[in-house]
Amino acid sequence: MELHDLMKQLQVKNYSKIVLLVADGLGGLPLQPGGKTELETALTPNLDALATGGTLGLSTPVLPGITPGSGPGHLGLFGYDPLQFQIGRGVLEALGIDFDLGPNDVAIRGNFCTLDAQGIITDRRAGRIASEIGAKLCAKLDQIKIPGVEIFVRPVKEYRLVVVFRAPGLGGDVEDTDPQKTGVPPLAPVGNDAPSKKTAEIAAEFLKQAREVLKNDAPANFFTMRGIDKKPQIPTFEEVYGLRAAAIAVYPMYRGLARLVSMQVLDAGQTIDDQCSRLAQAWNDYDFFFMHYKYTDSTGEDGNFAAKVERIEQLDAAIPNITKLKPDVLIVTGDHSTPSKMKSHSWHPVPVLISAAMCRTDACTSFGEAQCLTGGLGQFPAKYLMSLAMAHAGRLEKFGA
Amino acid sequence: MELHDLMKQLQVKNYSKIVLLVADGLGGLPLQPGGKTELETALTPNLDALATGGTLGLSTPVLPGITPGSGPGHLGLFGYDPLQFQIGRGVLEALGIDFDLGPNDVAIRGNFCTLDAQGIITDRRAGRIASEIGAKLCAKLDQIKIPGVEIFVRPVKEYRLVVVFRAPGLGGDVEDTDPQKTGVPPLAPVGNDAPSKKTAEIAAEFLKQAREVLKNDAPANFFTMRGIDKKPQIPTFEEVYGLRAAAIAVYPMYRGLARLVSMQVLDAGQTIDDQCSRLAQAWNDYDFFFMHYKYTDSTGEDGNFAAKVERIEQLDAAIPNITKLKPDVLIVTGDHSTPSKMKSHSWHPVPVLISAAMCRTDACTSFGEAQCLTGGLGQFPAKYLMSLAMAHAGRLEKFGA
Repeated sequence: MELHDLMKQLQVKNYSKIVLLVADGLGGLPLQPGGKTELETALTPNLDALATGGTLGLSTPVLPGITPGSGPGHLGLFGYDPLQFQIGRGVLEALGIDFDLGPNDVAIRGNFCTLDAQGIITDRRAGRIASEIGAKLCAKLDQIKIPGVEIFVRPVKEYRLVVVFRAPGLGGDVEDTDPQKTGVPPLAPVGNDAPSKKTAEIAAEFLKQAREVLKNDAPANFFTMRGIDKKPQIPTFEEVYGLRAAAIAVYPMYRGLARLVSMQVLDAGQTIDDQCSRLAQAWNDYDFFFMHYKYTDSTGEDGNFAAKVERIEQLDAAIPNITKLKPDVLIVTGDHSTPSKMKSHSWHPVPVLISAAMCRTDACTSFGEAQCLTGGLGQFPAKYLMSLAMAHAGRLEKFGA
Repeated sequence: MELHDLMKQLQVKNYSKIVLLVADGLGGLPLQPGGKTELETALTPNLDALATGGTLGLSTPVLPGITPGSGPGHLGLFGYDPLQFQIGRGVLEALGIDFDLGPNDVAIRGNFCTLDAQGIITDRRAGRIASEIGAKLCAKLDQIKIPGVEIFVRPVKEYRLVVVFRAPGLGGDVEDTDPQKTGVPPLAPVGNDAPSKKTAEIAAEFLKQAREVLKNDAPANFFTMRGIDKKPQIPTFEEVYGLRAAAIAVYPMYRGLARLVSMQVLDAGQTIDDQCSRLAQAWNDYDFFFMHYKYTDSTGEDGNFAAKVERIEQLDAAIPNITKLKPDVLIVTGDHSTPSKMKSHSWHPVPVLISAAMCRTDACTSFGEAQCLTGGLGQFPAKYLMSLAMAHAGRLEKFGA
């Protein structure tokens, strides 16, 4: 029996409210062995109070040693095994620009490139054209018509774009046309099964027309396709947990990930204070709130330890705006670690804090990696966070008699 | 390779004795954050001595956040994955009255109910008739004859009864006849496959005769059927572990669960001292002893923190009667937590103590949840407890060369 079957079978409704506050890339590393991490360095009186009355632990987003991207990181937090539910790059790129993918959509990540007169790729990124130029070229490509297919072409940033084909019966198993090197022509799209051959045919026709449309737009006189895929078949958050769930996220990627599991995406404003206001407004309309805070990750990616510490302190300052609503369960965690020492996502386990009336409190009195290591939740796969949230909210019946 | 295959492959015989002492619902919660649990509050010099010389840990009965019933809780302790081996309600009810279910038996939980003149249910529990009345009505129903089927009708308590049909080839996948509401007639039994259709036919005939037999017994003038099921196909304890196992349990439910994995059920008497005497008597005849102590759960269910503490202290006082027999491995644990704060089973991890000569001792010097959290066994799924027991008893060979 799978985890989701168990959740579907055991879920009960009540009036409890659950808040999942995700500080992206929260986990860190000390700059020197034996030193303190960003989270341990930050002054976090509010989180420490929650830690004292709650239970701490460390979650493993995918498997030990595996560094997750944002997609797998969040799916794990939402209780979807990231190894079972995989998201193609095209789909992730579409989610990242707030494109609402439907079940008949095939999403493709495109890269503008430069072809010479013989059709050979001379630059795989078209000289990294400015975003405004990319946007204009996308508007031209968006005019291409193919009978029986709706086509959407949207700019992402610089040389990156998203193409979506919408039609019933299209498959998502199509090889990249990007040969991953210069000095050769782009590859033809190849579908690996009958529905995907249909997609490949449409892609070939689209690329033929695109070549014509872009012929005078060097250096961006063509584009390659990568990560061609459909949105995975994924059970909705409501059917798995019976929760009316809302996402309050400033950045489109995280709204997209929430939309992937059919959460309602609310207007989040621009700041954590905006997000807290939105939370208060929506409080009565939902059972579950996913709040996303980006800056712990971006400062980590920048390698700026001090800035990450400051961003954690800003998050801490917002905690009273959440706790004053008296959530039955408040979880504070990250989707992965982003140590500023590494300037990147990492595989290190992620601090988790659960605050709820029925927590088995541990000896922890502050929120940090070392304390989490001694916490009552132990180290556990992130995909179990939601069953723990449901349990602490009194939303799961007993299994078996 | 499954855990059981590994056990079958690696098991070796020796003269070691293993005692698994299950204090039902042992795990608890502090009444106040940062306070002590029931087990931590209790004065337990004998358990503390075992903790000092042994290894502690915490087990997860099913999965994080999942609260188990007694069935899954015990199957996990016996090393049977509770998600793989599921027990129907009818089967559990039969186990709970010490009914020895065989492989040809279909067990059904019945509820006496009240029908009006039109055959509509007006009371799903027949006014909660006294147990003596239920017993008399069961005796009448037990006289019903259907050719080719042995029929057993046994009272449980008040309006609850167990019906068992015994015949070769009967299936257990039959829908409930209880419509779960009043104002409608009972449903007809419906089988979901060929063998279960046969069961459904027998059930329909039985219900027809029961209607006649009970017609003058209002308010209990009929009964509904629920949780119709067969005993799961379950490998015996002896074949998995090569252990001659005995169960010493005062309450029938736990004798039934032991019988489910083909342990020998011994007469346990009424008290923990009776159980210890029985253990001493049977010491030379078995390799493994499952002893069950109910009162840590029942006091927890009552929400009586002080009484649970007292029951733990009584259990502690009995420990010398076990240790004087010099078991090679003594395990003290629970099948789940029953915090008196919650008055119910819960999902919280369960304290585990292993005492054996080859324990890697940890820093723990008393038996309690906080100490277990720092113990050498860490947090682990309960289904691995038996492989740990086997290992500490020297009963497992090396895996691979």
